[in-house]
Amino acid sequence: MSSRRPFMIGVAGGTCSGKTTVSERLADLAGVERLALIKLDSYYVSLTHLPLEERAKFNYDHPNAFDWPLLNEHLDMLARGLPVPVPIYDFTIYDRTTEVRMLPPARIVVVEGILVLYEPALRDRFDLKLYIDTDADLRFIRRLQRDVAERGRTPDSIIAQYLESVRPSHEQFIEPSKRYADVIFPRGGLNEPAIDVLLARIRELAVLD
Amino acid sequence: MSSRRPFMIGVAGGTCSGKTTVSERLADLAGVERLALIKLDSYYVSLTHLPLEERAKFNYDHPNAFDWPLLNEHLDMLARGLPVPVPIYDFTIYDRTTEVRMLPPARIVVVEGILVLYEPALRDRFDLKLYIDTDADLRFIRRLQRDVAERGRTPDSIIAQYLESVRPSHEQFIEPSKRYADVIFPRGGLNEPAIDVLLARIRELAVLD
Repeated sequence: MSSRRPFMIGVAGGTCSGKTTVSERLADLAGVERLALIKLDSYYVSLTHLPLEERAKFNYDHPNAFDWPLLNEHLDMLARGLPVPVPIYDFTIYDRTTEVRMLPPARIVVVEGILVLYEPALRDRFDLKLYIDTDADLRFIRRLQRDVAERGRTPDSIIAQYLESVRPSHEQFIEPSKRYADVIFPRGGLNEPAIDVLLARIRELAVLD
Repeated sequence: MSSRRPFMIGVAGGTCSGKTTVSERLADLAGVERLALIKLDSYYVSLTHLPLEERAKFNYDHPNAFDWPLLNEHLDMLARGLPVPVPIYDFTIYDRTTEVRMLPPARIVVVEGILVLYEPALRDRFDLKLYIDTDADLRFIRRLQRDVAERGRTPDSIIAQYLESVRPSHEQFIEPSKRYADVIFPRGGLNEPAIDVLLARIRELAVLD
């Protein structure tokens, strides 16, 4: 790759809005040599200092849940053309594992997560700020289906967590960060005309190395 | 040009949102051989059947102000590769002039105007539906400055028209049509990262003829 600073894209939006779908389609199109995809979920702080019952009640949608200094340091490294050791978080122990995933630098860097347009030092890095804006009822329904099917949780526990932490954090931190977006995609990850527009930009960036 | 149906883009948004700026930047980039730009403002209905005092009070932001059948007929013609006679409206006589502007067919057709995502038969034609979403106070300030400078109107008359017809129509027809957009651009025509994304798509379409 060239010595030019990478083109940095932030992809924000509420829980189950379609952020991951959009980001992974960009990554698949460009390929790992051209696009480095970082998920905010890899940067949860360690909760091993909390008693086990408090870890389960922790608000994973609050800005304090994430290690912003480490994420910003990693983006500095990618901007300087260096590979970064992305943490691998284990939700069963509420802590980082001892393993990391080495992510090589690339022409395009995509950072995806609920709060990536909230944190100012992170937000200011992006050349393109994208917000995936899916209606709250549809996001809740997807979360309910996902957590029942993939995480073996009960509807009651999903509803309780949603009302106690997911929804208040969305209203307080995530939704207001839409204000900073350059482009808003309604209807999440299945909005083909919108994705085609973004893919055109990615193709253009990928060949202009 | 090929016999393929053109790629049709609708660009909607409130008064002074930046629709024209965005549309004209697309048109400048692609050139007239590749992009046909149609403005909804060319399709106002004739008001010569109304007494002069009622013409001045007419709601130019209401769906009934536009000749939708003629606009749809013209888009059918462009889709079949035929040139169209775009009306030239004269606001001093509240009627079409006897002259028209012949618009040749092109690979990309952009239709720009406050209500282009409102009218169903028009909306369904678009391959990409864009809504330029600028805050209402900023849109009003731009309209005030434009109408004082370019149309010699008084602030009082601009405010009266805004409160009596522009704002109610925005709330009733224009803002709800955002729901149909594939992509939303906040901050109007001066949002460079957003325009760069759209220009990439236009460049791609323009070369893929």
